[in-house]
Amino acid sequence: MPPPTPTFTPALADVRAILFDVFGTVVDWRGSLIPELTAWGQAHGHDANWTGLVDAWRGGYAPSMNRVRRGELPWTNLDALHRATLERIAPRFGLTGLTEAEMQWVNQGWHRLKPWADSVPGLRALHPRYVLAPLSNGNVALLVNMARAAGLPWDAILCAEVFGHYKPDPETYLGACRLLSLDPAQVMLCAAHNNDLAAAQKLGLRTAFIPRPTEYGPLQVRDFAAEGEWDVVAAGMEDFAARMLSAPSSG
Amino acid sequence: MPPPTPTFTPALADVRAILFDVFGTVVDWRGSLIPELTAWGQAHGHDANWTGLVDAWRGGYAPSMNRVRRGELPWTNLDALHRATLERIAPRFGLTGLTEAEMQWVNQGWHRLKPWADSVPGLRALHPRYVLAPLSNGNVALLVNMARAAGLPWDAILCAEVFGHYKPDPETYLGACRLLSLDPAQVMLCAAHNNDLAAAQKLGLRTAFIPRPTEYGPLQVRDFAAEGEWDVVAAGMEDFAARMLSAPSSG
Repeated sequence: MPPPTPTFTPALADVRAILFDVFGTVVDWRGSLIPELTAWGQAHGHDANWTGLVDAWRGGYAPSMNRVRRGELPWTNLDALHRATLERIAPRFGLTGLTEAEMQWVNQGWHRLKPWADSVPGLRALHPRYVLAPLSNGNVALLVNMARAAGLPWDAILCAEVFGHYKPDPETYLGACRLLSLDPAQVMLCAAHNNDLAAAQKLGLRTAFIPRPTEYGPLQVRDFAAEGEWDVVAAGMEDFAARMLSAPSSG
Repeated sequence: MPPPTPTFTPALADVRAILFDVFGTVVDWRGSLIPELTAWGQAHGHDANWTGLVDAWRGGYAPSMNRVRRGELPWTNLDALHRATLERIAPRFGLTGLTEAEMQWVNQGWHRLKPWADSVPGLRALHPRYVLAPLSNGNVALLVNMARAAGLPWDAILCAEVFGHYKPDPETYLGACRLLSLDPAQVMLCAAHNNDLAAAQKLGLRTAFIPRPTEYGPLQVRDFAAEGEWDVVAAGMEDFAARMLSAPSSG
């Protein structure tokens, strides 16, 4: 990797906390779930189309949250949305006859997602200088279990479930700033998704993009590159950390 | 210290997460603030009665939260309550003429509280087996800054500010269980205060008492010993950890 090019603007010196999108940005959901569930299915006699199931499962993610965001569903956390989607799509991919314990184990696959190779080194480098927290649509238990298994050095768990709103609702970004007792300009969102960054930037947060071009495997159609005027565009999490650590501190 | 006496009941095998009262239970607010502020006052020419001020400051803690709990004040986080109390009592103890930056530094003394000697070893021992979080009336930024400085291994920050209610309102204990996706019987509160444990027990949480008989210094009038049928009564945080780690796991 070439040495990082410092690209910080003076405004970055005010940043005190960095929030992270999690699914896709910090952890590799597709590269975790497909091999884990395939191996589990072979071991337990569940011969399903696991690749198709995982892609369809993730395909149900935004529509299910949008039903909550539009008020068609009362507040429902992501574990429950994942479970409902799983039950709906499982037969289509040859997954039938699971016990309740097996269904729970499959659904909790989202608690066991593994980080991209650069995530933990990058977060650990940032941690001495910046307050770090997820700002995820995952629920608290999911993010706690993931962090414990993966060694993610979060200082707090900030997520949709805490605010009763899913991203990109403004209550999530502004709620995180409020709970951290920081102005939006002192808080940065790091994400692999341009739409998440656009929502944060509109509310005054700083923004950092890192590409995760294999997040959706062969189905990826967007977010190959930065599509906005983000404060930082980095090659990955370690490059992002190097850039943020090269910024002069105002503190 | 004598070897711990295992006192767990079978119900303890269901505990998955342990919540901790913080002020007094995990950190020594009086033994942190008085020496720190005294030394700071000497260095900065503020010759106040710091011991009297700290005791009166803490004396204003419960009454200020009760004004919120009774609805006399809208939601106000603990930093703001601390600041209002400090401004009200400062002149009485000879503290006048501080700049805004100095007032902020004094008020943030609660972010810099130091743990009792057994707190970090006890929490670190518990962490591999149990999800750990504060359940404090402190606000998120206060608890995050404290944890970063003191090395407290929290998995999440659960506190009054997240729920918009101060303990002992039930919304705090039940809100913590809800965010952890656990039943109250799977969650334990560890505290040095019998009234906190009584509120938690009434809602179905497990309870552990550890005495902190010097918390209030010469002003301490209660909580020298367990006054309820708590699930665990330990001599301190390390003894508590040893007892919890001796419990058989049902998981």
